Amino acid sequence: MPRLSSTERTRHRRLPENGRTDRAELFAVLRAGFVCHLGVVVDGAPMVVPTVYGFDAANLYFHGSVASRSLVASADPDSGNPGSEAAVPGDRTEEAPQVCVTVTHVDGLVLARSVFEHGVNYRSAMIYGRPRVLAGDDKLEGLRVITEHCAPGQWNYARRPSKKELAATTLLALSLNEASVKIASGPPEDGDGPDGELGLWAGVVPVTTGRGIPEPDPALPPGLAVPAHIADLGRARLT
Amino acid sequence: MPRLSSTERTRHRRLPENGRTDRAELFAVLRAGFVCHLGVVVDGAPMVVPTVYGFDAANLYFHGSVASRSLVASADPDSGNPGSEAAVPGDRTEEAPQVCVTVTHVDGLVLARSVFEHGVNYRSAMIYGRPRVLAGDDKLEGLRVITEHCAPGQWNYARRPSKKELAATTLLALSLNEASVKIASGPPEDGDGPDGELGLWAGVVPVTTGRGIPEPDPALPPGLAVPAHIADLGRARLT
Repeated sequence: MPRLSSTERTRHRRLPENGRTDRAELFAVLRAGFVCHLGVVVDGAPMVVPTVYGFDAANLYFHGSVASRSLVASADPDSGNPGSEAAVPGDRTEEAPQVCVTVTHVDGLVLARSVFEHGVNYRSAMIYGRPRVLAGDDKLEGLRVITEHCAPGQWNYARRPSKKELAATTLLALSLNEASVKIASGPPEDGDGPDGELGLWAGVVPVTTGRGIPEPDPALPPGLAVPAHIADLGRARLT
Repeated sequence: MPRLSSTERTRHRRLPENGRTDRAELFAVLRAGFVCHLGVVVDGAPMVVPTVYGFDAANLYFHGSVASRSLVASADPDSGNPGSEAAVPGDRTEEAPQVCVTVTHVDGLVLARSVFEHGVNYRSAMIYGRPRVLAGDDKLEGLRVITEHCAPGQWNYARRPSKKELAATTLLALSLNEASVKIASGPPEDGDGPDGELGLWAGVVPVTTGRGIPEPDPALPPGLAVPAHIADLGRARLT
């Protein structure tokens, strides 16, 4: 399993003991959620937008429209020409602005004896790079990856996008090459110093995220059963 | 209740029907979590870091060290002089770089009849501005606000920071003046068009976040009971 890259910004400066370099850890963090925080620079200032994502072995996929002003203004090969799918994805890599995508799972609140040692147990991945705007079959495939990541089975169940809908969708692929993962877990660490003698309770309050029973759209005709792949989704834990 | 500001970047361009302008909605989103995503610009590129926060009527408070390279390199009045608390907080406002802090709660996965109408139910707040580095009593108060937001009762229970610990902490305050809130909720919206005739199930798979039973640090002496304020925290739902 290849290691995660160590560039100037993915090298773990702070709390290096929390840094992970295994790509399996990156995929585990990405698998455990479906909403990321996308950071872009707009007029010199940062903007952080939540958005859904999917991923495969090489790329993270997400919608570009959430950050449309900054991210895809001039880079979308489909824009203004809905019928054209001639542009080769990736051929504008040089022009795309840099982004940072962060996926975070909060696992617990760490209550120590001292305020200073309080913290959060979490798993987080940060991915840096210049995303490519996808077109043609790559765009459809990116959309499939996102859909199947969020709701496995749904790509074959729901109505797929029309040409017009596809043209109205901006899809980006961000290489997973430059990424870092940080994981913090376990109890507080001030039990063996002088604070351990204070007689104070310390530990972790777990934070859990899960899915509930699917809620049917009130507009559904009566008697339409929940398909198995959606019922399964409701039972699956997000971990 | 004053309305949220509408600057160029907090005006709701996309899906304006999801935009909220009531400050009560902002506080509701901030109350419902304790981890935000902080966006900063480092060497012209965005960086998005998860970190804990607290807030009062005027400001969001968070630690600066998570983005230390970019954010507080030259702006921390305490840096390099751990004994000094003479600097007036706020007097370097002009110098501080811009940040964007985003708090997001995912409430459900919206499964529509068409892939195009799929989405996420969520509540999200974005706050823009130039944070102030806090010093002296303001720094201690900011730390109290964060601690009490994450774990009410803990400021009076745990050992408070020493002078040395305070000096090693960088605390930032970001005005809540420039903020926007977006909320998406409810079933998918393709039930009344032609896709409503496809006979496909549609609805929402809820996503819930909660807290679990506090897990004691294995280093605790036997028989040390969980204090009431921590037991309450474990029972409280994150909504």
